Amino acid sequence: MKIIIVGATGTIGKHVSAALQKDHEILKAGSKSGDLQVDISSPESIENFYKHAREFDALVCVSGDGHFGPLSGMTDADFKVGVNSKLMGQVNLVLIGQHYINSKGSFTLTSGSLAEDPVLLGANLSTMNGAINGFVHGAAIELENGVRINAVAPGVVEESPVYFPFFPGHIPVSMNRVTQAYIKSVLGAQTGQVFKVI
Amino acid sequence: MKIIIVGATGTIGKHVSAALQKDHEILKAGSKSGDLQVDISSPESIENFYKHAREFDALVCVSGDGHFGPLSGMTDADFKVGVNSKLMGQVNLVLIGQHYINSKGSFTLTSGSLAEDPVLLGANLSTMNGAINGFVHGAAIELENGVRINAVAPGVVEESPVYFPFFPGHIPVSMNRVTQAYIKSVLGAQTGQVFKVI
Repeated sequence: MKIIIVGATGTIGKHVSAALQKDHEILKAGSKSGDLQVDISSPESIENFYKHAREFDALVCVSGDGHFGPLSGMTDADFKVGVNSKLMGQVNLVLIGQHYINSKGSFTLTSGSLAEDPVLLGANLSTMNGAINGFVHGAAIELENGVRINAVAPGVVEESPVYFPFFPGHIPVSMNRVTQAYIKSVLGAQTGQVFKVI
Repeated sequence: MKIIIVGATGTIGKHVSAALQKDHEILKAGSKSGDLQVDISSPESIENFYKHAREFDALVCVSGDGHFGPLSGMTDADFKVGVNSKLMGQVNLVLIGQHYINSKGSFTLTSGSLAEDPVLLGANLSTMNGAINGFVHGAAIELENGVRINAVAPGVVEESPVYFPFFPGHIPVSMNRVTQAYIKSVLGAQTGQVFKVI
């Protein structure tokens, strides 16, 4: 299977890449690193990316920025950081990618536990995570040729201690459990699911 | 209590207005009708709107457009119809309105059942509804001075038969139940809730 991993060099991406590359051809994509570059905030960059990536069987996105900061000072521009990257970046990978992916392929996006279990400063990310979960439900029933779509929704991960002070009382989740949720989506047969890792 | 209703002349808005105006001062807002006009897709229009509306105790938004159409032909521009109106319109009503609303005031936004119970052609609305639900969870824990925020998530309503063919097997919900969910949010004391009316 040929699998594209967008954000392959990130905290989660490197583990998902390592787990899948034993048995599959991996195309590592990133904004600046990897085998092929893509700026997911640009539909033109995504279109160009797919033309160069050629046919593939699965795409995993473990990339996407959001704004982390106080609601009291949050502006339209702050909020659009998440809209343009974490939301529209992932959505456009699917809207455009549906025309390039092989039959019975799959898309696996990343949302997160903040959709339902918020923390201070996280209103933008709670919104983007909820949006991705909704998109996965809506898109799953329309994708053609047996193409599937799921999201993985992790809590704060054990390899990101820099975030721990912002997640009081949240038990960091093991990277192995998070990685396996992506594996379940790519190698399993489910669609329209949000795999929570909390 | 002074209550702003954005979308007061719409299918749901007119019922919510009628129910609240017996005991409260209602400021009806709309894109073209009502006491005061606002284009919720424009942060500048929203800022100007609040300056003219002056202090208030509650805002109910029953407005916001989305794109309804097939995923197979959906573009970034189609998707942004919902992003700019139903999502950022409602989000900006809160981000900007938090600086104008009275202490112990409330915001009540509108999402919908498609977040979790999708229909064909509805991927954009499923996404926007999920986003609003996530925003409400995230914003509720940060709003200051006792200000609350909730969303109402209705299924297809009985007074919109034009939508019935797109919602096979969905039992239309009564307008009274939908209206009461908004009343519960405005006159009750809960915050961070998504009141599903299904």
